[in-house]
Amino acid sequence: MNNIHIIGIGLIGGSLAIDIKSKYTNAKIFGIDSNDKHLDEALNLNLIDAKATYDDLQQADVVILSIPVDKAIVELPKVLDKIGDQTLVIDVGSTKLPVCKSVENHKKRRNFLATHPIAGTEFSGPKAAIAHLFEKKTNIICEVEKTTFKLQEKALKLFTDLGMRIRYMNPEAHDKHIAYVSHLSHISSFMLGKTVIEKEKNERDIFDMAGSGFESTVRLAKSSPAMWTPIFKQNRDNVIETLDEYITNLKQFKALMEADDFNAIYTEMENTNHIKDILKGLI
Amino acid sequence: MNNIHIIGIGLIGGSLAIDIKSKYTNAKIFGIDSNDKHLDEALNLNLIDAKATYDDLQQADVVILSIPVDKAIVELPKVLDKIGDQTLVIDVGSTKLPVCKSVENHKKRRNFLATHPIAGTEFSGPKAAIAHLFEKKTNIICEVEKTTFKLQEKALKLFTDLGMRIRYMNPEAHDKHIAYVSHLSHISSFMLGKTVIEKEKNERDIFDMAGSGFESTVRLAKSSPAMWTPIFKQNRDNVIETLDEYITNLKQFKALMEADDFNAIYTEMENTNHIKDILKGLI
Repeated sequence: MNNIHIIGIGLIGGSLAIDIKSKYTNAKIFGIDSNDKHLDEALNLNLIDAKATYDDLQQADVVILSIPVDKAIVELPKVLDKIGDQTLVIDVGSTKLPVCKSVENHKKRRNFLATHPIAGTEFSGPKAAIAHLFEKKTNIICEVEKTTFKLQEKALKLFTDLGMRIRYMNPEAHDKHIAYVSHLSHISSFMLGKTVIEKEKNERDIFDMAGSGFESTVRLAKSSPAMWTPIFKQNRDNVIETLDEYITNLKQFKALMEADDFNAIYTEMENTNHIKDILKGLI
Repeated sequence: MNNIHIIGIGLIGGSLAIDIKSKYTNAKIFGIDSNDKHLDEALNLNLIDAKATYDDLQQADVVILSIPVDKAIVELPKVLDKIGDQTLVIDVGSTKLPVCKSVENHKKRRNFLATHPIAGTEFSGPKAAIAHLFEKKTNIICEVEKTTFKLQEKALKLFTDLGMRIRYMNPEAHDKHIAYVSHLSHISSFMLGKTVIEKEKNERDIFDMAGSGFESTVRLAKSSPAMWTPIFKQNRDNVIETLDEYITNLKQFKALMEADDFNAIYTEMENTNHIKDILKGLI
């Protein structure tokens, strides 16, 4: 694993670069990015050793595709066109069905492994890259059977070396469930931020009243629209379903308050406290 | 400030006890709690020096009332009945209008100061008490003009010694704005937890997919129903208004997705990213 190409040197690509460099001291890391400023930043931050282009991919041991999911489905086939026979290509996007479909009939399909490391922060770009981002995090692998066994092994070694736990799932199930545990959280947070900003736009001082509870609930509203718009677009139907259920639950809570049924409000919260046990040990 | 009585030795009362003990080494801290188990825990944890009853309040320099807001409006008049002429009584509840109204005509009204330290965690009870919880946090004081000047000074010294910033506000404005920056966050988090638990109840493994984003957005859903039900009840109308606006924003977001208007989705998120600047330096 000496020649690593990372396409898209942002939060995820850059953080992978940091950990790979520290684990594999002989590895040389090449960066490819449509944004020249980001590429220069990545060089200056020492995330990558050199810039590269698709024509260099022939020599790559591993190519990591870490770009917004709408770009990934366009670029992945081009990447597979360019790589060598032994090159492993990994994508790390937050939706899995469209990217799997984009190369289902590609002659190099067996060089590709679809993954989703459940790791990140609300920040983006090369400066957001941090060490140990993937330690003890779950990496979901889709359609593992469609990847050459030898390249599966190579990928697994890489993920294990970076400290990740592996889960296998088909892309349909991934996209359906991730809508609940990730995509809906982002929308609930963005809309919370919007509601408060709208209300308080003329009263900036009011944010002095915001505590750590508001800060943590609204944290994801700092996330990049360029990353999240294509995720919502690609996972449209699943996300709409989660929103339907979320809105229904909020309307029911409001109806209970309007009916002054605070015993039921208590029970609602008590039942949901169960999330404590669910999250314990998982995060 | 040698004789401090804390009524309700939970997260807030207990954390105040820790900081007061470390700042005022001569202070003796007495605990009063309707829950005997909590009182024993508080003694064992060394949060309080001794148990007490309302009959001891005559000698208190400061009484801190840190109990659920429905109990506070019942207990505060009884506390004022019992205290000495120079005793300062502070409440720390999350709603301010009902508690102010509960003693507006009490003959000892000028011994009372209504406050809301914007500090806490999702945990509760004496074991949840932690040091430095109030450092650099905002404390909102309501109807300051109704408290005797000498006791205002005493309270301000205490808050300043614990590291808090002070903001003055009338109780109506407090309850209206806190609904947006605190109460709504809790409901959005509880309903997010509920939505995901309902969906995934038969598929526990799915929570393996939950990352730090879900964890932070759903954190407040671990909060105590015994604390939060009376808050929502006392602030019913303001909370219903915030819920109305939140639900409207979510429905609009869903409508944009259904119309495949992802440019508008992008703009929604981009506008809300502004929350970054708002929160910067405030928290």
